[in-house]
Amino acid sequence: MSNRVTDEMDIVSVSSSRRNSESLPHVHKVGIPPKQNLLKEIAGTVKETFFADDPLRHFKDQPRSRKFVLGFQAVFPIFEWGRHYSLSKFKGDLIAGLTIASLCIPQDIGYAKLANLPPQYGLYSSFVPPLIYAFMGSSRDIAIGPVAVVSLLLGSLIQNEIDPTKNPADYLRLTFTATFFAGITQVTLGFLRLGFLIDFLSHAAIVGFMGGAAVTIALQQLKGLLGIKKFTKKTDIVSVMRSVFKAAHHGVSGYHLTFEILLVLWHQTVSNLANLNGYFVLQWNWQTILIGMSFLAFLLVAKYIGKKKKKLFWVPAIAPLISVILSTFFVYITRADKHGVQIVKHIRRGINPASVDQICFSGVYLAKGFRIGVLAGMIALTEAVAIGRTFASMKDYQLDGNKEMVALGTMNIVGSMTSCYVATGSFSRSAVNYMAGCHTAVSNIVMSGVVLLTLELITPLFKYTPNAILASIIISAVVSLIDIEAAILIWKIDKFDFVACMGAFFGVVFCSVEIGLLIAVSISFAKILLQVTRPRTAILGKLPRTTVYRNILQYPDAAKVPGILIVRVDSAIYFSNSNYIKERILRWLVDETERLKENSQPRIQYLIVEMSPVTDIDTSGIHAMEELLRSLDKRDIKLVLANPGPVVVDKLHASKFDEMIGEDRIFLTVEDAVRTCAPKMDLEP
Amino acid sequence: MSNRVTDEMDIVSVSSSRRNSESLPHVHKVGIPPKQNLLKEIAGTVKETFFADDPLRHFKDQPRSRKFVLGFQAVFPIFEWGRHYSLSKFKGDLIAGLTIASLCIPQDIGYAKLANLPPQYGLYSSFVPPLIYAFMGSSRDIAIGPVAVVSLLLGSLIQNEIDPTKNPADYLRLTFTATFFAGITQVTLGFLRLGFLIDFLSHAAIVGFMGGAAVTIALQQLKGLLGIKKFTKKTDIVSVMRSVFKAAHHGVSGYHLTFEILLVLWHQTVSNLANLNGYFVLQWNWQTILIGMSFLAFLLVAKYIGKKKKKLFWVPAIAPLISVILSTFFVYITRADKHGVQIVKHIRRGINPASVDQICFSGVYLAKGFRIGVLAGMIALTEAVAIGRTFASMKDYQLDGNKEMVALGTMNIVGSMTSCYVATGSFSRSAVNYMAGCHTAVSNIVMSGVVLLTLELITPLFKYTPNAILASIIISAVVSLIDIEAAILIWKIDKFDFVACMGAFFGVVFCSVEIGLLIAVSISFAKILLQVTRPRTAILGKLPRTTVYRNILQYPDAAKVPGILIVRVDSAIYFSNSNYIKERILRWLVDETERLKENSQPRIQYLIVEMSPVTDIDTSGIHAMEELLRSLDKRDIKLVLANPGPVVVDKLHASKFDEMIGEDRIFLTVEDAVRTCAPKMDLEP
Repeated sequence: MSNRVTDEMDIVSVSSSRRNSESLPHVHKVGIPPKQNLLKEIAGTVKETFFADDPLRHFKDQPRSRKFVLGFQAVFPIFEWGRHYSLSKFKGDLIAGLTIASLCIPQDIGYAKLANLPPQYGLYSSFVPPLIYAFMGSSRDIAIGPVAVVSLLLGSLIQNEIDPTKNPADYLRLTFTATFFAGITQVTLGFLRLGFLIDFLSHAAIVGFMGGAAVTIALQQLKGLLGIKKFTKKTDIVSVMRSVFKAAHHGVSGYHLTFEILLVLWHQTVSNLANLNGYFVLQWNWQTILIGMSFLAFLLVAKYIGKKKKKLFWVPAIAPLISVILSTFFVYITRADKHGVQIVKHIRRGINPASVDQICFSGVYLAKGFRIGVLAGMIALTEAVAIGRTFASMKDYQLDGNKEMVALGTMNIVGSMTSCYVATGSFSRSAVNYMAGCHTAVSNIVMSGVVLLTLELITPLFKYTPNAILASIIISAVVSLIDIEAAILIWKIDKFDFVACMGAFFGVVFCSVEIGLLIAVSISFAKILLQVTRPRTAILGKLPRTTVYRNILQYPDAAKVPGILIVRVDSAIYFSNSNYIKERILRWLVDETERLKENSQPRIQYLIVEMSPVTDIDTSGIHAMEELLRSLDKRDIKLVLANPGPVVVDKLHASKFDEMIGEDRIFLTVEDAVRTCAPKMDLEP
Repeated sequence: MSNRVTDEMDIVSVSSSRRNSESLPHVHKVGIPPKQNLLKEIAGTVKETFFADDPLRHFKDQPRSRKFVLGFQAVFPIFEWGRHYSLSKFKGDLIAGLTIASLCIPQDIGYAKLANLPPQYGLYSSFVPPLIYAFMGSSRDIAIGPVAVVSLLLGSLIQNEIDPTKNPADYLRLTFTATFFAGITQVTLGFLRLGFLIDFLSHAAIVGFMGGAAVTIALQQLKGLLGIKKFTKKTDIVSVMRSVFKAAHHGVSGYHLTFEILLVLWHQTVSNLANLNGYFVLQWNWQTILIGMSFLAFLLVAKYIGKKKKKLFWVPAIAPLISVILSTFFVYITRADKHGVQIVKHIRRGINPASVDQICFSGVYLAKGFRIGVLAGMIALTEAVAIGRTFASMKDYQLDGNKEMVALGTMNIVGSMTSCYVATGSFSRSAVNYMAGCHTAVSNIVMSGVVLLTLELITPLFKYTPNAILASIIISAVVSLIDIEAAILIWKIDKFDFVACMGAFFGVVFCSVEIGLLIAVSISFAKILLQVTRPRTAILGKLPRTTVYRNILQYPDAAKVPGILIVRVDSAIYFSNSNYIKERILRWLVDETERLKENSQPRIQYLIVEMSPVTDIDTSGIHAMEELLRSLDKRDIKLVLANPGPVVVDKLHASKFDEMIGEDRIFLTVEDAVRTCAPKMDLEP
């Protein structure tokens, strides 16, 4: 085989050139890669698609017992890094663990409310999952537990199916079912090595989605912060603002929505100033607002301090706990709960009860739980993997995305059986964990231990914690998810990405979490499709005193070669773009021909297609090339190819296109092609 | 702006090199294209996406009256080419028109039966639509009329909704409604310039789909060919074969399906030989079989002759009409219809009646008609545009796909109001048209005229035409849709394409036309996604005695440069592949480092990323590059970029990544980069 190929390629001969002959003393032939057999080729593709990270490389050439140990360590990395664990590392992990515990306890209670669950379920989810993760996960910095976005998503999806106040038992059952399937989804994706699927949620989409979710969550907290009792169950901004202002002022419900908010805002300012105890206190509660707002200010100031001085990272980390303690104490001594300040009231003492029997494996909740679980599982994965990757690249260690998914999935499956809802890596707590100097996942174990003590000993003390504080804590936590700087950067870099980002943001804010996601994914896909449908092409010119040919738009001093048009195609030639590419090349040719005619310059005799960026070509692409060749033949212009890649050479050969065009018209570089064509040219116009 | 850019780029300084300094006397800077404003950029993208062919170029700088004439000619190209029409052209068109008319009349009657319509509707659809197309279309070779695949698709889809024998009036109403919406779909796609959507059906998918449809259609003809009365309404091979053998042999319906066919085949051979007039003639009709088979043989021989000698193209073209005349005469004199040979019986005389009032614009048929129409319209478009493009490239004229769609759509809309069903360009008749020497769409007008005469004068003569002849004509027509050579070529060129092709084929044969289409489109999309998710990367080496760096797998004599690893990324860096690319580059690095360690060669100090094929980068891509930079910094390896394209340079600049990496590490060519890095290197291991 390879003999035949070499023979054919020998036709590419060294041509004596009138110019530049000194700069390239040797003309190389276009190489054809060694032919692989079909099975090897398929195996190669499968490997690169699913096992791109070559996960079994360490297992090669090892005895069986060693393989077993390695396999065990692959599933439970703690037994690998645990052997090098030291006291100094533990010091860092202990401090980090205590810090994130103090941050997570108030957050957990708040997030549980976001998911429409009793407060203890948030704490449960910060106890079991981090333990499992510590054994199976490979990230050293991630802090596991319930997170705001997933809680909101889960809460709003399940609420659509079951009313949490009327039917709390069924609501719990569906929650655990969804959590179970979220775990199954994650394990399955990891096990089937389909982890790359979450890459389809682009960075821009995540920024927009997170921002939108943060706004939605913050708006939801107006209920707790203002002490409103009747509140909408929808999450879009219009419904929420309507609820908020209806609570402050009744009788506006008849107005048309568009005017409503404006009118209400106006009434607010005028009438409430005059009659603070009339309208205003009707449903808003001023004591609640006072407590909520002052602690929110405290939390935000703490956050600001932490942001300004990196060394004071512990200030925003313990501020929530301090707020909870202070406000609880304050409510307890003033008995503000009797003046309408809503409090947590009941929070169950003791560790997680079993919940295996509550997971539905049949009936109507199975399908619903599955659907919700898949969605929540994917979102949870996206967040965890994004966090894991960020910190892994900061500390420069490798993270196996697929293994991470198996760890996260297992932790959620076990969680669903021990009264936890979907847990994942939290952005804010992971950052605190990192800054507090964690070394390994032991900080998660420490946190888990603190949560255990909290559950066993001090939950009754949370009885008088005002809901407004939880709302303040959630607001101050989600504020940092709104990343305006990132959005500005996205705008600067890529306008299409910005559209995806804003689509996700407004989709979440004005419709719902799912719609926002759908918009973001659709726009991202549209972008990919646009790229493969309308790839770029460029006219190349020669840079003076070099043998280099570049885009004449990028390099204005690049000069066209008389009588030769050089076009570069910037994409694989596939069915989705083959016609476009053919027609675009012909259009370049027509434009150029017209221009040359006007200036009565020599006509074009050669069309060189620079194929360096053409990584692949399919049957439709070959057809388009054949049609191009035919069109050029009719115009008496010769088609010349420069630098086709290995795959393309292979396919040109298989389709016999190389014979059709003539093997002496395929060159290694544009320079070679130009030097061979130029002497042959009849330069009369 | 451009000043600042130049200043920054000045840092890329000419470096004195130890080697090769004679071959590249001048180091160029990486160019930044002139900055466009946002609106221009968006306008450019929109233009390239929707107006890639620049349809308004002829309108530029023309007076208003001229613009109006040009616009009128754009909608009705006949007024443009009509002015240059001559008698010699008409001669060609007349002969071609008569030839395709003789081919289309028997085909039309057969295809109408395929669509479960009375035979005259096929002729109607060959009368009005070709006339409209002749005025509006721009293809010179396409022959318009009903085609096999669309007739089958329409027939099977509408039959799922309404039984054509029980409720023929409603069946007709839904047919016209679907035809109307097929036309609307086509006009809309053309008008919104979304013509590129049909490119998403790849060549491979079309080959498979057409082959599958041909097999399905041929199987359906067994009904007519064998004279079976009770026949399945499903189109999949299993149902059809069951019908065929049930008709030949009763009592096997209790058997399990898998064994059934085998058993029946066995019974067939044994028992039918013994008892030809017992079982066999139970439902099969030997007179029908005799007529059908002998004419099928005649048609296939004619086809073979036409294929072998291109000059005898008229033999297969008139063979169907001769068969019809002969067989009709034969049946008429022998009165074979009294011996069970089914005949056409009734065929209405006269031209198309109006059918505007039969189109449903409300009620239950609106939605169904819309859905079926959209699907049939798309398939019809695909076929017509593929044909149009093929012949346009053979005669080298430009075809505006979007304008074609408007023409085809208008013709179907008018058709739906004049009792026609979906018409489009026919593969077989267009080929005959081309070979018979047509020059313009006038051949369609001639054909239309002949059909008119047929409708007015000789339809009653078709009364005794046996159905078996129509079946034979259809089989011989669709046989050429099974393009085994193309399938073999696809297998040779691209295995993934072959899977799409076979998926479409077996999907159509074993399930249904829609499923086949769905499979083909899904596989084609999966291929695009795979390409953007797992792009190729390659290690480059320097070709001896050149300044050219190429893939070392393709060019085994390319040599790596000590201390430098050169990686080329073969795709735009997008969210869908940014993580993969980052990790793949790091893996190349780790592999190479290990290899060097083993051989105790100098360690790698520079990683050059050749960006020529990287046509674009988005925010996720920039993030991945930042992470790559950070990882390399930790390993004390310097990242160097070579030849980023205009868009990439722009975005590296917007994201300040160029400052992060240092502008003096972005080079025009790999050679420049190597020459700058190499002298600085500490080559001790």
